[in-house]
Amino acid sequence: MADKVREVIDEFGRPAEFREGLEGVVAALSMISSIDGENGVLLYRGIPIEQLAEHSTFEETSYFLLYGRLPKRQELTEFENKLKSRRQVQPAILDLIRSFPATANAMDLLRTSVSALGLYDTDPANSAPEKNLDRAIDLIAAFPTIVAAIQRRQSGQAVVAPRTDLSHAANFLYMVNGEAPAEYASRVLDVALILHADHGFNASTFTSRVVISSLSDMYAAITAAVGSLKGPLHGGANSEVMTTLLKIGSIEKVEAYVLERLKNKQKVMGFGHRVYHTYDPRARILSQYSQKLAQQTGNAKWFDMSKKVEEIMIREVGEKGIYPNVDFYSATVYYYMGLDQDLFTPIFAVSRIAGWTAHVLEQMQNNRLFRPRAIYPGEKNLAYVPIEQR
Amino acid sequence: MADKVREVIDEFGRPAEFREGLEGVVAALSMISSIDGENGVLLYRGIPIEQLAEHSTFEETSYFLLYGRLPKRQELTEFENKLKSRRQVQPAILDLIRSFPATANAMDLLRTSVSALGLYDTDPANSAPEKNLDRAIDLIAAFPTIVAAIQRRQSGQAVVAPRTDLSHAANFLYMVNGEAPAEYASRVLDVALILHADHGFNASTFTSRVVISSLSDMYAAITAAVGSLKGPLHGGANSEVMTTLLKIGSIEKVEAYVLERLKNKQKVMGFGHRVYHTYDPRARILSQYSQKLAQQTGNAKWFDMSKKVEEIMIREVGEKGIYPNVDFYSATVYYYMGLDQDLFTPIFAVSRIAGWTAHVLEQMQNNRLFRPRAIYPGEKNLAYVPIEQR
Repeated sequence: MADKVREVIDEFGRPAEFREGLEGVVAALSMISSIDGENGVLLYRGIPIEQLAEHSTFEETSYFLLYGRLPKRQELTEFENKLKSRRQVQPAILDLIRSFPATANAMDLLRTSVSALGLYDTDPANSAPEKNLDRAIDLIAAFPTIVAAIQRRQSGQAVVAPRTDLSHAANFLYMVNGEAPAEYASRVLDVALILHADHGFNASTFTSRVVISSLSDMYAAITAAVGSLKGPLHGGANSEVMTTLLKIGSIEKVEAYVLERLKNKQKVMGFGHRVYHTYDPRARILSQYSQKLAQQTGNAKWFDMSKKVEEIMIREVGEKGIYPNVDFYSATVYYYMGLDQDLFTPIFAVSRIAGWTAHVLEQMQNNRLFRPRAIYPGEKNLAYVPIEQR
Repeated sequence: MADKVREVIDEFGRPAEFREGLEGVVAALSMISSIDGENGVLLYRGIPIEQLAEHSTFEETSYFLLYGRLPKRQELTEFENKLKSRRQVQPAILDLIRSFPATANAMDLLRTSVSALGLYDTDPANSAPEKNLDRAIDLIAAFPTIVAAIQRRQSGQAVVAPRTDLSHAANFLYMVNGEAPAEYASRVLDVALILHADHGFNASTFTSRVVISSLSDMYAAITAAVGSLKGPLHGGANSEVMTTLLKIGSIEKVEAYVLERLKNKQKVMGFGHRVYHTYDPRARILSQYSQKLAQQTGNAKWFDMSKKVEEIMIREVGEKGIYPNVDFYSATVYYYMGLDQDLFTPIFAVSRIAGWTAHVLEQMQNNRLFRPRAIYPGEKNLAYVPIEQR
């Protein structure tokens, strides 16, 4: 990474260096997840993501991220019951969503709704760790309800109230579609939620830690994280992947499209990652689910196109460490599940809220204000010129 | 600063180091402001803050921060007219403020209102620089109206519509108090707004840059910044300073209070700064205005108490580089002006919106996603233990 260091002279005439985008710069220690970008390994609190995707549930993984250990049976049941009992959000939040222009962006609506949730906190000045843990559980429980309400509103359908007899993933699909999902669909979404729940100091998680570091509050931190996630260089990418596949339209056109993008030095959405220089382990798992859904739905087109994009990308730029990332296969997984494209990035938030809240709690345990330095490369001590003389 | 570097072994067994809170770490170059923390010098685009406080206006300073040069007469008039014509906010935003619990925190209401503004953008997908500059002007114009509306609502008074015949500062005071302010009050607020408009990569500005770096949007970045500013380690400090002075109650009790805090290693609000290890140049200017207001109002108490706190702090910990910061004297300035304490931090936002938007525009000109690294100091490759065996 040495070649990515920029060397400059600072405004005091001293040599200084920096890495654009803080690439490779250690911002803090964190026990929540770890990434080995060379070998494509992602651990949540020490456990490989593959094991959690195979054996765990989103509810259990959320507990694990928040509490730092896997729950015993009774603890998990209590945690699941808490989540279930908090699925209902204040009617005022649903009224709010209905009051905004129907054309508004779903992530902008989610950001505003989360910010508004803070206005209804009954003990807002209480920043004790146990109170913030309680808020974390509130938010994990509320996100699917808010996202589903936004989706229903935007598609002109009545909002569906949550059910308490369904799992977190199943209830979300129920609230989106108005009917209980098939077991397999619930499990696929559950796995996708597990895989997206945390990923070190990605931009939105880092945002949440920067915001809480002024000792602001949980809602401020999570609102900010939602705002960050929206961007196409972050959570917005999964929707862009699907847009790309739809635009290409057929497998015959894949090669020409990819080669043209590469020739023009344009990004191919869903490829490349700041940390991974090999296959993203989450993409490997999601690719398998995409394939299974292709078989189940009898519609291989989107999976086959994805595979073709991947094949050409790896052939052309794999040696540069550019491989599919998590967004590349989550796109077709959600598409095969019949989920509206506008939901792709909000679903990322429905999962990542577990990681965000865990990071906010961790940051508060050993806080120091994030306040880096900027170097000013301009002229100093200029004079204020009166307006007549400009 | 070498002693602030923490040396650790990373999860790959390699030595690594980091600075908590990214202290002293260069995050990017910026042409907007520069701080010489050893000599107590703050420049906006090269011009010392003292000159701007003496000769400029908040409107002109905002133009300067956004465009990178001082405006010619006609440019300034056009800019001022733009700001004036955009002081009205959508009625829906005012309805929104009225719809929330009257007890809600003013900064939380501001954050939610700014987030909601994004939902009414008529061309939300347009991220051209000129469009974002236009949004910056919208936001600078709208912030005083929103903050004043929040204040009026919280004090049970009718919202006052903006006037277009008053300066930015005077109109804000008019909307807060329901009557046009004295000329001197307008000028004091104008200076305070100039002094708070930018300050390098403080936590909220850094937050705004991190959020926009995913190529999210202006509203997401500013919403996040408002959330960050609220914290007592950042913009929340000016209100805490006033709370402290009110709690101490009289000049006789100052020394015992300060010594007790220091003995218990507790923070004295309004003292110390990540970057300044000497007198904050903004505090020096605001101290003079606090003194003048003490004379004008015939109430020297709060200024005298502040001076006493300062005297003892400098005597006790000045050699450690702990001096008054901007929040210390802005508190009494606002208090003498009769402004409600709940307004102190929102007024900071009314000013800093100029810096935030300038930084968002600058970040977008040469963007790279902020995505630092976390070091995981825990055990790796743990096994998922089935629930019965936990």
